[in-house]
Amino acid sequence: MLLSAAGDDPERSFFVHPAKLGEALVVVRPGASLRLGYLTPMERDEAAATGLDLLSPEDLDVARWARETPEPGAFHANVLAQALQRCGVAPGRIALAGRLPFGLAAEVLERLAGEGWSFVSASDALLRIRKHKTAAELAEIRRVAGVTCSAIRAVAGLLGAAGVRDGALELEGEPLRVARLKAEVARIFAGAGLEQPRGNIVAPGGEGGVPHSSGTSSRILRAGETLVVDLFPRGGLFADCTRTFCVGEPPERVGAAFAAVREALSLAHSAARPGAHGWDLQVAVCEAFTARGYATPLSEPGTLQGYVHGLGHGVGFELHEYPSFKRHAHDEGVLAAGDVLTLEPGLYDPDPTNGFGIRLEDLVYLGAEAPQNLTPLPYELDPRSWR
Amino acid sequence: MLLSAAGDDPERSFFVHPAKLGEALVVVRPGASLRLGYLTPMERDEAAATGLDLLSPEDLDVARWARETPEPGAFHANVLAQALQRCGVAPGRIALAGRLPFGLAAEVLERLAGEGWSFVSASDALLRIRKHKTAAELAEIRRVAGVTCSAIRAVAGLLGAAGVRDGALELEGEPLRVARLKAEVARIFAGAGLEQPRGNIVAPGGEGGVPHSSGTSSRILRAGETLVVDLFPRGGLFADCTRTFCVGEPPERVGAAFAAVREALSLAHSAARPGAHGWDLQVAVCEAFTARGYATPLSEPGTLQGYVHGLGHGVGFELHEYPSFKRHAHDEGVLAAGDVLTLEPGLYDPDPTNGFGIRLEDLVYLGAEAPQNLTPLPYELDPRSWR
Repeated sequence: MLLSAAGDDPERSFFVHPAKLGEALVVVRPGASLRLGYLTPMERDEAAATGLDLLSPEDLDVARWARETPEPGAFHANVLAQALQRCGVAPGRIALAGRLPFGLAAEVLERLAGEGWSFVSASDALLRIRKHKTAAELAEIRRVAGVTCSAIRAVAGLLGAAGVRDGALELEGEPLRVARLKAEVARIFAGAGLEQPRGNIVAPGGEGGVPHSSGTSSRILRAGETLVVDLFPRGGLFADCTRTFCVGEPPERVGAAFAAVREALSLAHSAARPGAHGWDLQVAVCEAFTARGYATPLSEPGTLQGYVHGLGHGVGFELHEYPSFKRHAHDEGVLAAGDVLTLEPGLYDPDPTNGFGIRLEDLVYLGAEAPQNLTPLPYELDPRSWR
Repeated sequence: MLLSAAGDDPERSFFVHPAKLGEALVVVRPGASLRLGYLTPMERDEAAATGLDLLSPEDLDVARWARETPEPGAFHANVLAQALQRCGVAPGRIALAGRLPFGLAAEVLERLAGEGWSFVSASDALLRIRKHKTAAELAEIRRVAGVTCSAIRAVAGLLGAAGVRDGALELEGEPLRVARLKAEVARIFAGAGLEQPRGNIVAPGGEGGVPHSSGTSSRILRAGETLVVDLFPRGGLFADCTRTFCVGEPPERVGAAFAAVREALSLAHSAARPGAHGWDLQVAVCEAFTARGYATPLSEPGTLQGYVHGLGHGVGFELHEYPSFKRHAHDEGVLAAGDVLTLEPGLYDPDPTNGFGIRLEDLVYLGAEAPQNLTPLPYELDPRSWR
């Protein structure tokens, strides 16, 4: 199997985390040690720190290919072919992983195909391997989840300290805007070495009624409206957690929806056990919402109001991994000991003026003994009750 | 031209910055408006905020392909083909850009080839377009460069405030480690909404003697050794700047090397004008180093001591863009008004005990009137002289 990549790449991170390398390649063969190829001597210490068996720029004849075949497609095809040859792999079918520019990939593949190579994707196999977390991976996810909880607590603290004037929240004499909360979150993540490559969601009212809207920074928060806070930072691996707040008395329909989401999350927690199918959990949660009178993707496919998405997803080097909660999943849709996954029911009304979003999301590790909630935060809408 | 991508992708950012979208595609045709396709209704508001002509999940028949051809290669091939058909593009040769998993790319390309499509890479054409910065891009690079300067000043401040005990630096009664400086940098970047997807370099002594070593966090800094601080954060676009510090009296050879690097940077600044070739600047700097008795890639190809890398690179949505400073570059190696580029001579000794690294890097905008240094910081080794 061959893995080639440039820059930030979850498939490469799984093998060479946490080395900071530019373009590099990894050759994996059954029964042989992993080989890491790097393309510039300036990265020799970063490469050596991985402890892997290395293919140096000299081994790969990088200088020669840069001179003789400088065009990017030809250069990379020659480097890859040389790496495979060095590892004793003769032309034939190889499984590919990593991230490459799409156009470069097309050029490299065309050249390699002309030399007798053919290709399948290794991504699915890697997702299956990555589904079961190692102790080190779990420890890092646990750390990142802990910092995520601190950031959500900090948001609750700011909201809880806010006053209300003419319906708008204010803090330290200033209107309280989404930007202030996002800055606090970024500060906490930076202090712990976490980044937010996929951004975050701090979405008030109707903005939170569209599940993937990230929230307008300049928006002033208001009493009585919902605020969805969904954070998914990455250290070595990702974590993912959501809470929803409402400062002041929530409208009756928001209170009712919150109770339904809270119930759905409890249901999901008790059903998330090794051997369960992600899709069966989704069906159970849909049925619970239907019984309370909400639309779901099962009762109204394509609905944008009510419960409008899947119940969860695995989390690891990528934000969305196995286990799958999709209907047509095979064994990648079966929960197993060693999985780390989200459970995140929600209810939504995307109306710009009177809309709301409510989502509660925990990150769960399915231990061999019992599930562990890696995000043990309060669930209450009222941030003042979090103190 | 077709552009498809998932997640963080400089080629997509150029078209749809700063939308936070998952998988999405962009179709570019001469004389027609850009079309942005997104794959889930949850992203409808993020997509609409780009102001682009949209292809919705319904337009792309996403639900149908997910049901009928759920395997990732088939699914994405069908969505792409449908997008092209919707835009009135008949099967033929298309130019590809964006970032995709390598294995997925192979599967998608094989299927599309079977339907009569063939491919070239659009990456080089996009790099050429991106070489000339728009006013908005320049403004963002200028902002990011300003924050980068603040971060380097903050590092100088911590170093300048440090005491020395038994040769080791200490601050507030604690040994001063690389980690403390990296945390301060991260805090400042987070406050300005910048991230560090490529990491950073805070590399003391011999670690700084290997240009791409990022620096060991636990390492305690020492008086009389060099410290390379190379920061390259990203907001909407990247900035890139390096300074080198030495607390206390530098060894004589460090002082001499610093003077040579300082001279090389002045030379580079005065030669970086529209119409100049990046490679000619590299040759001029090599000759200046050779005259002072240092090895260079020209005098000793492959040297790991002395001047060991290229003089600079363009900066934009990616950290390394056009103009190129490479020997065999064609017109992408010619500096032009509108370019943003680094100038970064350095001298290195990678010896683990007595080694050093010295690099000075400015980020320059080649205006139509005169070049502008976007990183106007002091150059002095002694952080106390920065106050």
